[in-house]
Amino acid sequence: MSLPVMSKIPFGGDYNPEQWDEGVWDADYRAFDLAGIDLLTVGVFTWALTQPDEETYDFGTLQRILDRAHAEGRKVCLATGTAAVPPWLAQRHPDVCRTDFEGRRHLFGVRHNACASSPDYRRLAAAVAGRIAERFADHPAVVAWHINNEYGGLCYCENCAAEFRLWLQARYGTLDRLNDAWNTTFWSHRFSDWEQIVPPNMLSEHWRGPNHTAFQGITLDYHRFNTDNILRTFLEEKDAIRAHSDLPATTNMMAIYRHLDYHRWAPHLDFASWDNYPTDGSPVSRMALSHSLMRGLKDGQPFWLMEQTPTMTATRDFNPVKRPGVMRLWSWQAVAHGSDSVLFFQMRHSKGASEKYHGAILNHAGRTDTRAFLEVAALGAELETVGDRLLNARTPARVALLFDWDSWWALEISDGFSRAAKYEAQVVSYYEALWQAGAVVDVVPVTADLSAYDVVVAPFLHMLKGDTATRLEDVARRGGTVLTTVMSGRVDEDDNAFLMDVPGPLGDLTGIRVDETDSLPPDHSQPVVLAMPGGAERTVAASHLFDVVQLRGATAVGAYTEDFYAGTSAVTRNAFGEGEGWYVATCLDQDGVDWVVRRVLERHGLVGPFADVRDLEHTTREVDGRRYEFVLNHAAVPVAVDSPFAGVDILTGRTIGEGDALELGPADVLVVEAR
Amino acid sequence: MSLPVMSKIPFGGDYNPEQWDEGVWDADYRAFDLAGIDLLTVGVFTWALTQPDEETYDFGTLQRILDRAHAEGRKVCLATGTAAVPPWLAQRHPDVCRTDFEGRRHLFGVRHNACASSPDYRRLAAAVAGRIAERFADHPAVVAWHINNEYGGLCYCENCAAEFRLWLQARYGTLDRLNDAWNTTFWSHRFSDWEQIVPPNMLSEHWRGPNHTAFQGITLDYHRFNTDNILRTFLEEKDAIRAHSDLPATTNMMAIYRHLDYHRWAPHLDFASWDNYPTDGSPVSRMALSHSLMRGLKDGQPFWLMEQTPTMTATRDFNPVKRPGVMRLWSWQAVAHGSDSVLFFQMRHSKGASEKYHGAILNHAGRTDTRAFLEVAALGAELETVGDRLLNARTPARVALLFDWDSWWALEISDGFSRAAKYEAQVVSYYEALWQAGAVVDVVPVTADLSAYDVVVAPFLHMLKGDTATRLEDVARRGGTVLTTVMSGRVDEDDNAFLMDVPGPLGDLTGIRVDETDSLPPDHSQPVVLAMPGGAERTVAASHLFDVVQLRGATAVGAYTEDFYAGTSAVTRNAFGEGEGWYVATCLDQDGVDWVVRRVLERHGLVGPFADVRDLEHTTREVDGRRYEFVLNHAAVPVAVDSPFAGVDILTGRTIGEGDALELGPADVLVVEAR
Amino acid sequence: MSLPVMSKIPFGGDYNPEQWDEGVWDADYRAFDLAGIDLLTVGVFTWALTQPDEETYDFGTLQRILDRAHAEGRKVCLATGTAAVPPWLAQRHPDVCRTDFEGRRHLFGVRHNACASSPDYRRLAAAVAGRIAERFADHPAVVAWHINNEYGGLCYCENCAAEFRLWLQARYGTLDRLNDAWNTTFWSHRFSDWEQIVPPNMLSEHWRGPNHTAFQGITLDYHRFNTDNILRTFLEEKDAIRAHSDLPATTNMMAIYRHLDYHRWAPHLDFASWDNYPTDGSPVSRMALSHSLMRGLKDGQPFWLMEQTPTMTATRDFNPVKRPGVMRLWSWQAVAHGSDSVLFFQMRHSKGASEKYHGAILNHAGRTDTRAFLEVAALGAELETVGDRLLNARTPARVALLFDWDSWWALEISDGFSRAAKYEAQVVSYYEALWQAGAVVDVVPVTADLSAYDVVVAPFLHMLKGDTATRLEDVARRGGTVLTTVMSGRVDEDDNAFLMDVPGPLGDLTGIRVDETDSLPPDHSQPVVLAMPGGAERTVAASHLFDVVQLRGATAVGAYTEDFYAGTSAVTRNAFGEGEGWYVATCLDQDGVDWVVRRVLERHGLVGPFADVRDLEHTTREVDGRRYEFVLNHAAVPVAVDSPFAGVDILTGRTIGEGDALELGPADVLVVEAR
Repeated sequence: MSLPVMSKIPFGGDYNPEQWDEGVWDADYRAFDLAGIDLLTVGVFTWALTQPDEETYDFGTLQRILDRAHAEGRKVCLATGTAAVPPWLAQRHPDVCRTDFEGRRHLFGVRHNACASSPDYRRLAAAVAGRIAERFADHPAVVAWHINNEYGGLCYCENCAAEFRLWLQARYGTLDRLNDAWNTTFWSHRFSDWEQIVPPNMLSEHWRGPNHTAFQGITLDYHRFNTDNILRTFLEEKDAIRAHSDLPATTNMMAIYRHLDYHRWAPHLDFASWDNYPTDGSPVSRMALSHSLMRGLKDGQPFWLMEQTPTMTATRDFNPVKRPGVMRLWSWQAVAHGSDSVLFFQMRHSKGASEKYHGAILNHAGRTDTRAFLEVAALGAELETVGDRLLNARTPARVALLFDWDSWWALEISDGFSRAAKYEAQVVSYYEALWQAGAVVDVVPVTADLSAYDVVVAPFLHMLKGDTATRLEDVARRGGTVLTTVMSGRVDEDDNAFLMDVPGPLGDLTGIRVDETDSLPPDHSQPVVLAMPGGAERTVAASHLFDVVQLRGATAVGAYTEDFYAGTSAVTRNAFGEGEGWYVATCLDQDGVDWVVRRVLERHGLVGPFADVRDLEHTTREVDGRRYEFVLNHAAVPVAVDSPFAGVDILTGRTIGEGDALELGPADVLVVEAR
Repeated sequence: MSLPVMSKIPFGGDYNPEQWDEGVWDADYRAFDLAGIDLLTVGVFTWALTQPDEETYDFGTLQRILDRAHAEGRKVCLATGTAAVPPWLAQRHPDVCRTDFEGRRHLFGVRHNACASSPDYRRLAAAVAGRIAERFADHPAVVAWHINNEYGGLCYCENCAAEFRLWLQARYGTLDRLNDAWNTTFWSHRFSDWEQIVPPNMLSEHWRGPNHTAFQGITLDYHRFNTDNILRTFLEEKDAIRAHSDLPATTNMMAIYRHLDYHRWAPHLDFASWDNYPTDGSPVSRMALSHSLMRGLKDGQPFWLMEQTPTMTATRDFNPVKRPGVMRLWSWQAVAHGSDSVLFFQMRHSKGASEKYHGAILNHAGRTDTRAFLEVAALGAELETVGDRLLNARTPARVALLFDWDSWWALEISDGFSRAAKYEAQVVSYYEALWQAGAVVDVVPVTADLSAYDVVVAPFLHMLKGDTATRLEDVARRGGTVLTTVMSGRVDEDDNAFLMDVPGPLGDLTGIRVDETDSLPPDHSQPVVLAMPGGAERTVAASHLFDVVQLRGATAVGAYTEDFYAGTSAVTRNAFGEGEGWYVATCLDQDGVDWVVRRVLERHGLVGPFADVRDLEHTTREVDGRRYEFVLNHAAVPVAVDSPFAGVDILTGRTIGEGDALELGPADVLVVEAR
Repeated sequence: MSLPVMSKIPFGGDYNPEQWDEGVWDADYRAFDLAGIDLLTVGVFTWALTQPDEETYDFGTLQRILDRAHAEGRKVCLATGTAAVPPWLAQRHPDVCRTDFEGRRHLFGVRHNACASSPDYRRLAAAVAGRIAERFADHPAVVAWHINNEYGGLCYCENCAAEFRLWLQARYGTLDRLNDAWNTTFWSHRFSDWEQIVPPNMLSEHWRGPNHTAFQGITLDYHRFNTDNILRTFLEEKDAIRAHSDLPATTNMMAIYRHLDYHRWAPHLDFASWDNYPTDGSPVSRMALSHSLMRGLKDGQPFWLMEQTPTMTATRDFNPVKRPGVMRLWSWQAVAHGSDSVLFFQMRHSKGASEKYHGAILNHAGRTDTRAFLEVAALGAELETVGDRLLNARTPARVALLFDWDSWWALEISDGFSRAAKYEAQVVSYYEALWQAGAVVDVVPVTADLSAYDVVVAPFLHMLKGDTATRLEDVARRGGTVLTTVMSGRVDEDDNAFLMDVPGPLGDLTGIRVDETDSLPPDHSQPVVLAMPGGAERTVAASHLFDVVQLRGATAVGAYTEDFYAGTSAVTRNAFGEGEGWYVATCLDQDGVDWVVRRVLERHGLVGPFADVRDLEHTTREVDGRRYEFVLNHAAVPVAVDSPFAGVDILTGRTIGEGDALELGPADVLVVEAR
């Protein structure tokens, strides 16, 4: 199974006409025509509508929505609608409601409110999904199945406790093995009966909150269990659909979302999709990282951008509108990194409830002359021009960034060292450096095949599972470069420390030994002097964590200048086979990370053509022998560069010669089909 | 029914002799004589004393307190004592205890601890109120009934759930109507049984806290229900009293208190009263606003200042003592704005429990030579001099400020735009501008008769109910000026967005259209240039919210200078009938609000005589053809002005001629009876 | 009973070989030999191991650990292991789990998790302690009993409610007496049945958290009850041990730990011990204060330093490593202030769970060539050199600092004045001044015999119990100096205010009267000018609290310079008998406290020899006619001073003459046996 079959990049998004009189639908469709909208995501929160009580289904409204879409030539991504339980279900089966981290059983309310261990929820969610598939499998408008919505959160109820114990039995087999994995002899925790195990929350193993646990083992396993347990409900719905339809199924994910290890989900998705709601102030590169993480789920297969706001969000403390051009720029960024769709939440502003001020293509007045609508319509026209040329195109990357939910969890639920040194921030920082340098990068799990990459970057790879260390050594052995950092190579798959020198199994690759790691509050930093042989020095700042490194074969690339470890190495590189193992022993500021990453890329000639133009993004997609060069100006100022490639800008039809001056205003985009 | 009949401004306040041996009472009365104290509020927390168990009443102590008061010529405001349940009641009927926002059933403790839905609480509170009224209705000391105390808070128990459902049935009649009002089709919330509805708290519709709800409709209605539900207990006590007494009844309110919509209470109060405990750092004008809000409850009828501290509070993190003269100044400010009493909490410091360090007239040593006591005694003497001259005087205002609890609630429980832009802050800012300009202002509900006002100011009037928009248009049509702002005219009474251009039904009056509103963190601001034709420009700062205004008849008074909406209008005015509709499209700093408000007042000649002397307050009361000009110096420095009026200062007997130099030191007060 | 009999300062600490294969034990012992480790604390968290279910005990592993220790000549401090309940116990008797301040019953998890009121916990903890004592009483390695571990926390369950009522009945006898003590007439709280009393938490008397209670009386008594209730479990274990063994028993305390009043525990400990984990940024003197507080528990008897980390902690947000030399310096500081041991947590890094990154002597690689190990081994050698010379030495102090848990609790749970003025901070500040001045200080309870002291310092002595005021007067009467401060002398033992002028029973001693106390936010301060007759003036800063002082015999030592009390006294001294009573009426900055304390010490010639060298610590111990002068350089720079004493440095054997130059680098230590 793969992506839905489309003849161009689908354009549209979430559409909730069930909230409106059908008279409004006419206005919607006139507007959709104006904007070139050809794909509608329908039915995301319709369970109370499609199943008004446990015994009754009513698909009349959905039918009318789909018929109308088809009549006007639009396609539908059809949702199962199970992401919010209807009131009758909570009333009749209270166990569908979650118990939170504080141990409180919830009542009916909000959304994403179902316990994935509830037999009633599982039974009824699969049933309604099956019924919808049965009814609409052959509807000509339907091109894909959208199961549930933004899965997430955790539950700590008795049903979850029981399911967790079964999951543990399957994982460990015996209590002895579990006791060893969790090191329960510590603090008198040795379990003698599976029933003694309760979900780890504020009533049991936690103090101060979700990241502070007395036993990392149980908390880590609860995250893994939760990922699998929620995945099971996805699979139950998917199976129910499969009984009636072979159309591809997905669910909209949230990319860098901590609660679910999407790598465990990836094999079960026909295609990946996700919702892009960047927080204000996060770097533009974080969106590129997110797109690449989603592309990495299915070995480089394109994904769908399922949602983005055309204007503003509603749930933040402050919800700025997107500046002119930004919606288009970010839409093209998604495509540049592998999206085969451009979709929005949503078509029309809700009139009431919590998203009444969330941006939409049509505002409360239903106007088609607003800035938001006009920008959407212009993008719709542009996408029609582009047609099918970019569909199924792949990204030819020689650099991989490792992303690992287990390391994220294990690191941040551990006591010790620094609570302020965060996994996501480090990954974002290293990706930012790669992005500014113009490297084309895949973001992959630690289990990925690394044989195609020249450079592998693994920041904060706290947990080393299976043969990861060996496979990283292989990268270097054959001439590649592996870059890792402080906090890497500390624990095994059970979160037990390696009983060897830090950085554990990465010691040979990096050629160092670390006996002690200092950790200081974030307001503390010290200069680190970086230098390559014969190259210029650069002084950057180090903070948070400070490995005291002993060289065991490696050579110094940078050194601390203060404290009792002044003069010792802060950055090292080690010859290993034909390649190198680099180690950054501290948290460098962005300038420092940029410098280190640039040195690594230079070794392999992987610095991009616009590496010296700040915030000018470049990446590449290829399909059927055609190559597309994307150039996006995220800077607030115009930029001018010489074109490193020749071809035709498919957005304007303009021919570009190698060496031609390319001038891009703020938010400008070029998509050059190489000649 | 109206105010208690008094022969002068009553002076005194809360008195709790039941906490002391009767020997102490003698010392109390000697001190009261020294201080001119003639009114005692008695019995506020005496339920455990007056009813030691469910079957027994004991009014002996109250009788002795009242008899002693009468014997010495003092009057009593007699409380029903129901604001804190006695231990036996919580023990015998646990349902009297509240369930909090987190869903936790409370046990016995604190005060204001009763659930207003508890049948046992309601029954027993009304019973004890009736018994007290029966016993003391004809006691010669009693002049008024003080029901309960500082009503407030919310409960989320099963009894409340049941009462809420009844309230909803009465409001909506059918579930279809309710589902439409709450827009429940959104997120699959369509209710099919009234029993499915549960109180909105952290276990149901809320996330992050009381202001974050998935469904504004249910949360808004819960606030309305709570107001009505608590009011019912007030009415039940009042009815029980009425069976025995026709003396006026009140309860002490808290003015700008978010949890209760006092406008719904106003018709049921014989007279309004409130407790003035300003937080440190709040502007002096906020007290004037509070007094005016209380005066506005009963169409301008004077109210009672029921409590203020003579020295310091106890529940704040920091509890400064009132500086010399401040207690007197603020007492006169209350009178200036319509109070017919000057009362304190309390007569004598408690020896123990949470208010042992709350200020009192008599300290723990019982001294009558402390600064606090001496200042109280001086004020007591002053009030005796004034006699009955100010009683029942009214405030002749031509400016109205609209205050609307529904807008407050709806705005602050809504997702979208800015969480930092607060209703109270905006109302306080516009009132501050009016106050510094010396305008005499009424603070009234949106349902008030506006026909007497030249200027109506309506900041953040988020919700437009009933014919409010029409009545505001009427103000302008006949020549008045209406000033409203960003965030106004957004939603109807159900909190559903108006399906029209912003600012909804205020569009014609303001002559503008708004398609998008930017919202930015509080640390962001931009200059706005204000200018009137032929007048000087002024540059002020705009922050939080930024409507992008399109002029549809209005003219610009001020413009943004930055961002993509630079040059568009930040302040507008629109000719409408004989008058004008003004719109402030952003949150201006105080300087900006002052400038705009001054322009509006100037149009009607309503700028006061001391508008250019900062913090010199002026207001007016009138009774029986006499007019009193109050001048209060809140500045830390002396001020000198020419008197705009002629008359006699009733505090000193000094004759003042028009144009005479008035010199007021810090905290000085003049009350000039105009000649 | 007294300290364990040792032939030198025991060196070692927590040892948990039960977490490891016995093969690792060999490596441990080789390392212990290298480091001079001769005492192991064994069995602290072993309940799940020693009692695998309610009916079964298994001491095999403990036996092997003890036998091995003995075989290699090491001694053991043997723990009862009851500080963390085993899973089977929580499963079988859920009432052993605590109910927290929020009223939530906990499930199995973490440690220090047992309710001290649980009959099952009490029965089974005493039983296992007895069994361990029975088995190992005569084991030749065992030198002391370590009962439980770091007792602490509170529980609010039904069992605790019942025990609390019994405790109250024992304390008050009648409800009338209790109602009077708690002043329950306030807010209608008069109890008519003991069963009406529930533990004070967020479901009953509290708001905003543990420090905000409506009734200080009940909350204060709950702290006292909790201290006694947990102490009871200690005594039950101790009694069970005493049936088999007369070896001394202790528990490791936490010094300045708010939840337990260790003075109530002191009579029941054979010897005191504690765990020193200073938070980063706290002054070095706070450790000296802590040591002295522990020494003060048993009238000056030496204590054991039971735990400290050799390198870093794990539970803090940031966990820096101890800088070179600091572990040794702080170890000697403990000895200097009365410790007869130097012990660590722990011997070897755990491989998993929450302390896997807590520092240990042996790291995960088990290396003996790390900085941490080498510093430990060097200290071990040094201690062998010193031998038994310092054992049982006493500290000859002429200055006492009063430390009072009741005042700490009462002050910080009270509404009123300033929430930012904290007991601990003030005590630390006054101790810091004494420490920098080089005074040799005892830290004692208010019940201590004060007859040996020339100076008694009592900051924030909020509660005055029993004859404390009289005994303080006695100090001054015979020529001593008593120094007390704002917030002192406010309440009696029931937390009811003294019905007299502030500072209550301290009024005669201090010669002042206070009618009002201003309190302002921490960002506010004002200059205070300090001066002694004929001495130089010094201007310091005052903040938080500002008593307005009237002199009633005292003379001014310092005066405010701002606000309405400018010119009034901020510091006073009063001639009383042959001595003086000093009063600091505000919170002075450290400079101010230093100045005042120095003046007081000068009066008695108690300023130390290095008072002008910042952070150069000096203190003294004496035993059998020998006197040891400890000099420790906590400064980051070398210092040079002339030796005020003659003798031999027992760490180096170097002879030192009076007047010789003493040069101490950073972290250097001298222990001079006086000649």
